[in-house]
Amino acid sequence: MKLSRLGEFGLIEKVRRATPRGRSVLLGIGDDAAWVANPFPSSLVTADLLIEGIHFDLKWTSLFDLGYKTLAVNLSDIAAMGGMPAYLVLSLGIPPAFDSRDIEDFYRGIRFLSAKHGVGHSPHRPIRRSGAQAGDDIYVTGTLGDSALALKFLKSRRRQPDRGSVKYLLSRHHRPTARVTAGALLAREQLATAMIDVSDGLVQDLGHICKTSGIGAEIWEDKLPLSRAYRALAGTDGSRHALSGGEDYELLFCARKRDRGRIEKLQTRARVPITRIGACDLGKNGIVVLDASGRPVGIRASGHDHFRG
Amino acid sequence: MKLSRLGEFGLIEKVRRATPRGRSVLLGIGDDAAWVANPFPSSLVTADLLIEGIHFDLKWTSLFDLGYKTLAVNLSDIAAMGGMPAYLVLSLGIPPAFDSRDIEDFYRGIRFLSAKHGVGHSPHRPIRRSGAQAGDDIYVTGTLGDSALALKFLKSRRRQPDRGSVKYLLSRHHRPTARVTAGALLAREQLATAMIDVSDGLVQDLGHICKTSGIGAEIWEDKLPLSRAYRALAGTDGSRHALSGGEDYELLFCARKRDRGRIEKLQTRARVPITRIGACDLGKNGIVVLDASGRPVGIRASGHDHFRG
Repeated sequence: MKLSRLGEFGLIEKVRRATPRGRSVLLGIGDDAAWVANPFPSSLVTADLLIEGIHFDLKWTSLFDLGYKTLAVNLSDIAAMGGMPAYLVLSLGIPPAFDSRDIEDFYRGIRFLSAKHGVGHSPHRPIRRSGAQAGDDIYVTGTLGDSALALKFLKSRRRQPDRGSVKYLLSRHHRPTARVTAGALLAREQLATAMIDVSDGLVQDLGHICKTSGIGAEIWEDKLPLSRAYRALAGTDGSRHALSGGEDYELLFCARKRDRGRIEKLQTRARVPITRIGACDLGKNGIVVLDASGRPVGIRASGHDHFRG
Repeated sequence: MKLSRLGEFGLIEKVRRATPRGRSVLLGIGDDAAWVANPFPSSLVTADLLIEGIHFDLKWTSLFDLGYKTLAVNLSDIAAMGGMPAYLVLSLGIPPAFDSRDIEDFYRGIRFLSAKHGVGHSPHRPIRRSGAQAGDDIYVTGTLGDSALALKFLKSRRRQPDRGSVKYLLSRHHRPTARVTAGALLAREQLATAMIDVSDGLVQDLGHICKTSGIGAEIWEDKLPLSRAYRALAGTDGSRHALSGGEDYELLFCARKRDRGRIEKLQTRARVPITRIGACDLGKNGIVVLDASGRPVGIRASGHDHFRG
């Protein structure tokens, strides 16, 4: 049914009925405000906004995937502080010409992902961006560049021969994995000195850690974790998307050298590979990317800036 | 400076420096998520979205007023549950062609209003929409219809002779007063059985109370609190904007008959007039508006629905 026929309050009622109430939610949709429990003395709060034409394009994104991604990118911010998701508040701006089934698909995507994540609270201190020290190792979860390479294919609309690999990259773009378990374990065991999620590109996001921590860093190009699909399809782009492509939603973190063994072991419980890709140093020249022979790789001013396009 | 020159992170840094940190905020702008204290076992959460062309028009709204109103409409939702504001998380979608001074004006409006409101937490139960009973009185704070009448003048662009009155109405439209103190007092003293803020129009918002409470209601047209400016300028519109105009952000609440004296007294401490405008009944026919002689007033299907325009 068209939203202009169903009406605002008809839609709210549909959404209310379909939305399960988590443990923390004392009062959900339908009053002037929601009412939530605070079992612990502090909470993490994030509010990432997704705007059509900027963050997504309905030409190639289904409403289900959009719901999935909307939740995933926010979960990723909570993961990057080492927190656990407790509840979700959603504001929607939708044109009246939409069909209510589209919005139901959107919410199905949200529910599909939220059902995968246990909700809970975490009583430990969050991991900030500013705690890295010279000498710390630099790690990243999962693989880098998949999402940006997928977006390149979506925009070019050229058919790729290796359809299995393309499909994999697209799934990484449309349904990113927020590394909530890894983030929470790193926080609970106090293993990460600084952490951020890779949403704007590795070099740029590492730049935020370096700037707030007052250090520099070197990244080893040949150690960047690349998926099989990425290696198969990146071609002459090489490691470019892994270095400066956005929307990977992997965790980038620093840790003390003495904790290498513990981080190695953590991978099994976190259910994601964790790769050491560089080291923090005292250099004030920001970030240097070195190739396999130790020579600096030229990196273009990279990463995403909303106002600079 | 144009945002396209200042860049996303330049703007974030400007905003971070200008934003004071309230008591509840352990970590503000600049990391993946904010970190806030929870001194009480539960919290109220609201997330009202303002979209250009739908909720505001920059042809007649200054960025300062837009900031003011953005905070006010959200404060109003907290007030309508009887809560006190503790902290604010803001997501912005801004075109790159904006100048950073515009955004600074927007934040100045936010800060101007937030400085007027002490932040705090309230340990009592929130007031829901669903608690009204047949026989309860119906009250509203302040005056109704000012904002909708102002919007009519803004749209018509016709000059009104009584400029003082127009100015007053415009201030009610651009800088609505969230009745936080009144809401918190009503909650603390358990005087309101149900409460909502008048954002979509009196009849429609009362409809939400009636529907969730399973009752009907009658409203007395001649008791509606109208400002001097409204009376001077409404002309043949009569009480129309007071009945179905939106964006008053006054509190509409129900209370037991036996509490009339206590509510009368509460006005001084709440620093706002409170007017008894009707009564709840068992009628399942929804809401009836009666004129001074007790005859039903015809009300058009009224109030705001985003999808029906």
